This record gives sequence, structure tokens and C-alpha cells, in this order.
Amino acid sequence: MSVAALLGAISAVGADGRRGGFSRHGFDSADMQLRAWFTEEAARRGLAVETDRNGALWAWWGEPGDDAVVTGSHLDSVPGGGAYDGPLGVAAALVAVDLLRERGFTPNRPLAVTVFPEEEGGRFGLACLGSRLMTGAVDTAAALRLSDPDGVTLADALASAGLDPAHVGRDERALSRIGVFVELHVEQGRGLVDLDAPVGVAHSILAHGRWRLRFTGEGNHAGATLMADRRDPMVPAAGLVLAARRAATAIAGSRATVGRIVPVPGGTNVIPSTVDLWLDARAGDDLRTRAVVAEIEAAARELAADEGCAVTVTEESYGDAVVFDAALREELSGVLGGVPDLPTGAGHDAGILAAHVPTAMLFVRNPTGVSHAPEEFASDADCEAGARALADVLAHLAR
Amino acid sequence: MSVAALLGAISAVGADGRRGGFSRHGFDSADMQLRAWFTEEAARRGLAVETDRNGALWAWWGEPGDDAVVTGSHLDSVPGGGAYDGPLGVAAALVAVDLLRERGFTPNRPLAVTVFPEEEGGRFGLACLGSRLMTGAVDTAAALRLSDPDGVTLADALASAGLDPAHVGRDERALSRIGVFVELHVEQGRGLVDLDAPVGVAHSILAHGRWRLRFTGEGNHAGATLMADRRDPMVPAAGLVLAARRAATAIAGSRATVGRIVPVPGGTNVIPSTVDLWLDARAGDDLRTRAVVAEIEAAARELAADEGCAVTVTEESYGDAVVFDAALREELSGVLGGVPDLPTGAGHDAGILAAHVPTAMLFVRNPTGVSHAPEEFASDADCEAGARALADVLAHLAR
Repeated sequence: MSVAALLGAISAVGADGRRGGFSRHGFDSADMQLRAWFTEEAARRGLAVETDRNGALWAWWGEPGDDAVVTGSHLDSVPGGGAYDGPLGVAAALVAVDLLRERGFTPNRPLAVTVFPEEEGGRFGLACLGSRLMTGAVDTAAALRLSDPDGVTLADALASAGLDPAHVGRDERALSRIGVFVELHVEQGRGLVDLDAPVGVAHSILAHGRWRLRFTGEGNHAGATLMADRRDPMVPAAGLVLAARRAATAIAGSRATVGRIVPVPGGTNVIPSTVDLWLDARAGDDLRTRAVVAEIEAAARELAADEGCAVTVTEESYGDAVVFDAALREELSGVLGGVPDLPTGAGHDAGILAAHVPTAMLFVRNPTGVSHAPEEFASDADCEAGARALADVLAHLAR
Repeated sequence: MSVAALLGAISAVGADGRRGGFSRHGFDSADMQLRAWFTEEAARRGLAVETDRNGALWAWWGEPGDDAVVTGSHLDSVPGGGAYDGPLGVAAALVAVDLLRERGFTPNRPLAVTVFPEEEGGRFGLACLGSRLMTGAVDTAAALRLSDPDGVTLADALASAGLDPAHVGRDERALSRIGVFVELHVEQGRGLVDLDAPVGVAHSILAHGRWRLRFTGEGNHAGATLMADRRDPMVPAAGLVLAARRAATAIAGSRATVGRIVPVPGGTNVIPSTVDLWLDARAGDDLRTRAVVAEIEAAARELAADEGCAVTVTEESYGDAVVFDAALREELSGVLGGVPDLPTGAGHDAGILAAHVPTAMLFVRNPTGVSHAPEEFASDADCEAGARALADVLAHLAR
């Protein structure tokens, strides 16, 4: 079965009629359908599927055990995301198992295909939630209290999915099973297009984080309130978007984005009382990321004061820059005949695991360069090339 | 029964736990509860209740007929609105009927208490929807296609409420029944506070309208996309908020507000592909309102072009300035012992009806001056004073 056929089988799950693309979020109904689909595909291959304490799925080739070769990715998406970000890594891993068997290969180490939950943070706001819980990179109690836009907490969602919130948190046993982790992912830029290569190896991930800014003013009537009498939090919030653009443009290689903004109450004829917005900021290292955020935060305080508003800034997540294991990177590039290595601005579960176990990533060419949007793409031929490359890498690591 | 007691009886309906205040929108479950409450209160007073073709409720004292004295307001709210905007006028009308009966008064003209649906436009985006439909101020087919944020059309919502969408539209019969219309409303500013008067008469309503601006760029990954490669519609949208503030500050007496903004897809780690925002603009006359909007629209085009984005501007509604019937205004002020008259920046069904029938409004003092927010207020004593003033006015008009 081809990667394209596997992805085709789930192409109706979580399709988002309003935004386009897919909206599949941790433990929602689309995600539960995808998890069931994965379990079935694994079973069809004779792989025994376990769910760990944090809701990650593990499909084992042979006996589960320590020091395993582990590959996989995630099945959730951003709101209105593309078809490849996440599912490509899972589908390629299943096809890699098929290819290895066709080649008559038998692993000399345990080998598992994993699915990490809520990698995008599209439901509970914290990216790489599953791998952060597994590695203890997030406070468990605080994570369980995270809630989705409908007020459902992570604890509730896990319980609904049949998991016990009391068992959530750092999982030494799961971690000790990972001898090496390799995640295949669609590239989120045009690096491989420019290099004319279908597959590459990841070099590094930018330092990145998310901050929530809440501007508070005075809700009032849009018609009856004189301009001079207003304390309208939308005004500093708008200024903040422009300040973020300026700050990230000024500091080389950094990025700052406001993709989500929620005025409350949100009526057309109402000056909002509160505006929440989320800042995504990244740069090549911790120092520059912190510098961008500090500049934006200073602007927020000044903009709020100018309008007679208050502002609070809350760091929702932060991850330092990751440079993947140099030896492993070189080894995999060699196995694949000298494919290029390249950095990425996107975060991944592999980036969280990299602090604990030798970790690598393979990228598959994305001709549009677009990511987190329906236009994200990988050709069927490149998807198959990715699966073959992953099979080669797994065969090498489990030899 | 006091106005306060009537409002107290509905103080749990549509309470909004997230925004504070009330969210009661045309034909939603809260609104249907309020309509049932009104029907019951009218029946308790022996008033026969009719629902007209456009969903307005009419409670008749005596035989329905032409050239009636009609009073009333609305029961829906903005999202997270206050307790008085709308319901005060309905409750005061019911209490005025009680007072007139206690005084032994019998009207010499038909008298009705009305409830107009979806005055705030909180569900379908078009303020004064009921009175616009009744007077033909909106295209019926276009109105029936309006949809709420869940994609439910007005036609669907009316059908669910037991109304026939085929009968919606300009209603000559209903209009011919209104000999004179008087709406009592909480003041949406501090005019009466400054004048130290519990009750006043409305002089005029600002020209006002709503425009939807849609900025379209390129959705992409917040981390992987270089700042220089972006076409992020959030940037011109933010610039637009500031341009609106500047334009309305520059043109005396005008107001411009962005209270609602929706980035799509709306993920924290996603550059949006589209940002919709709604502009509410008003001024003392048509010329100045159009000037404010033209300046903001020009800014929108420039801001969009600077970011490589497109923008479309759609007028969702527009109403010219209304000066209420001068003779009626003077007459009512005289009946009430010379109460002040004062302008308002807020739109009302009375403003729509004013183009068709002699129309007036009474305002009740709002000590906070806040409107469209939970802080909106009127003291119990002022509410009763309002009901007494309305009774005096109705007695005079139906004498």
C-alpha cells in the first residue's frame, strides 16, 4: 500500500468546510477516528498497539523492549491545516515497515511506530503536548488544567478518551524504550525545492515560544461613546501586531506572528472590554528570541498605557533551540547517499525528545513551501521516496 | 408589578458566563424564552398577543386596529450586553399598561406593546433586522440568506421559530396599524446624568453603518516562513484599526470602532490566510459618516497593497441620520413637564420606523454611561420614573 493510498483513506476525516483543509485536534472526534485508523492499519501489519500513559500510540514490530528504534509523527493538525503535516510521517512509517518486510529484513532491535497526541497544540494551546508530558517538559498538574475553547480541560478530554489523568506525566519507562527516534515530516519551507532534492535531513529547530497578551479596557457602546472617552483594548492590540512585525524584522532570522486574536465580547457595535491575542515568536537562539519578545512586551506596555488600558503577558510555552545529534545526522545523510541537511523554523516532537535521546528528522520536499495551510503539498513520488528513505534509515539503525 | 421585578424574572435567561452580562440573540434559545415570557406577561394583563410576518410580537390592549399608539422595544442583546438595553423598554411598557389601568384610563385608540426581533444584529449581523424587514429597508431575499456564525440562515432560524420565511418582508398592514410609535430605552451615555434628570426625550440618531473588510493574504507556517516572505493579512487589519481611530478622531463628532475581528484559520502558530473585521462608523450626518468611511477604506487599500494582500469592503448596513418628529418631541416633553431632549449615537428600531410613522423615544438615566456591556445600569427608581413617564405619554397619545 502506498503512502498516497494511506493518506487518501483519511482524506475525509476532520475536513474543515469553513477554513478549508483539516481541523483535527487532540482527542476530538476527528483525532479519535484517526487513532482508530492507525490502530487498524498497525493491526493489519501484525503490529501490536499500546497506548502509553500520556496517550501516545506505539505499534510494535516484534516484542516491545528497551533501546528500540522508534519512528513516527502526529495525526492532529492546526485549524485548517494541510494533509501532510503529521500524517505523512505516520503513513511513511507504516509503508517503511511494509518495504522492510518486502526486502526480507528483520530488525535486530525492537522497532516501533508512534503517534504523539496534540503536537500542534490546536486544542489546548500547548504544542508538542504529548512529548512534553512524556519527558516532563511541562508541569503535569498545570497541563491537566489546560482547557479548550469550549472549556473542556485536558483531564476531561483524556478521561473521555479512556485514559486516566492520574497516570499522566513524565514516563521513564516509555523514554527508556526509545534508543533512537526518527521523525519524517513534510518540509515547511522551500529548502529542498531550491536544492532540487526530494528528501533531506533536519539540522536544527529555532528557539520558539507562545505568549498570550491580554489587553483590558472599558467595554462600551460603539455609537454612543465619544472617541475621546474610549479605553478600547483593540487599539493597543492592533499596535502590538505592528510592533511584532517591526521587532522581528529588525532582529535577523527571527519571526513573530499574531495568528489568533479574540476580542470580548466581540460584537460589531461594541467597544471590547478585553482583547486576547497570542504571539508566536522564534529565532535561531535563546538570546535573540528573548530579545524579540522583550521588545514586543515593552511595546505592549507602552501601547496599553497610551490607551488607558492594562496588559498582562503570559508565557504559555517556550523551547530553546535544538541542534539535532551531529553524529546521527551525518550517519543518516550517508545512508541516504549524501542528502542535504537543513534547518527549520517549525517545532516538532522530535525537538522535545532530542534533549533526552538521540533524535533525527527526515524532510520531504514541499513544492509550495506553504505549511499550516491547505496549500501544503508533497507529490506522491516524493512521499514514496520519503518512505523508502525512512525504510533505509530504519534498516540501518535496527541492523 | 415593578419594572425591577419584571427584569428580575428574566435575569438568568441568556446570562453569559464567559463574557459577563447577557447574550440573547434573535430566535436563539434565550430569545425564545424571553418571547415566551413576554407572551405570558401580556396574557396575565389580558393583552392578546400576535406574531407578525417578520417575527415581531404585538400585545394588544383591546381590539387590534389601525392608527394605534404603539410602544415597545427589543429583548435581544449584543454579545455580553447589559440587562436594560431593550428589556427596559418592554418591561416599562407592561408596567405603563398596569399604571394606566390603576388610573382607570381606557385608551380611545388601539394600543399595543411590541417586541422587535434581532435589534442588535448580534446573530445575523444586521441591526434593527425586524423593523428593517417590516419597513422594506432591507432586501428580503438577501436578509433571508444572512447566516449566523454557525451557518444557520435567517430563513432557517425563522422556520425553527415557527415562522414562514415566504411571508417575510415589507408589511404594509403592520405599518398601517402604527399611528405613532414611542420607544423607551436606557440612555447610552451620560447626558441625563449631567442634566440631573431621570428621563428625557430623544432628539436625533447619528447616521451609522457597518462594513465588513476582508483582507486576504497567504496562510503559512508561523515559524518556517521568513518575515520577508510573508503576505500576512493580520498586518493590514491591525493597521486598519489604527486608521479607523485616526479618521474618527479627525472628523468632529464621528465614531469608528472595530469590535469584531476573525482571523482564519485562527491558529497561534499559523499566519492567517484571511482576516475579516467589522467597522462600525457613525457621525452627525450622512456627509461626515461617508467621509470617515471613505478615509478608512482608502487606508485599507493602501495597507493591503503594502503587504501584498487584497481587501474587499462590503457595506452590511447603512442608515442616514434621524431627527425625530419635532412636533411630537415638543409635545411629549411638555406632557412630561419640560424634560430635556438629547441626541444619541445608538441606532434603534424607532430610528427605522421614523421614516414611516411619527416616532419618538424616551431615555432613562444611566449613571455609568456605559452601554453594550454588563456595567450598563439604571436605578430601580429611575426605571419606575421611566414607566410613569411612558404611561403619561401613552395616556396623552391615546386620549
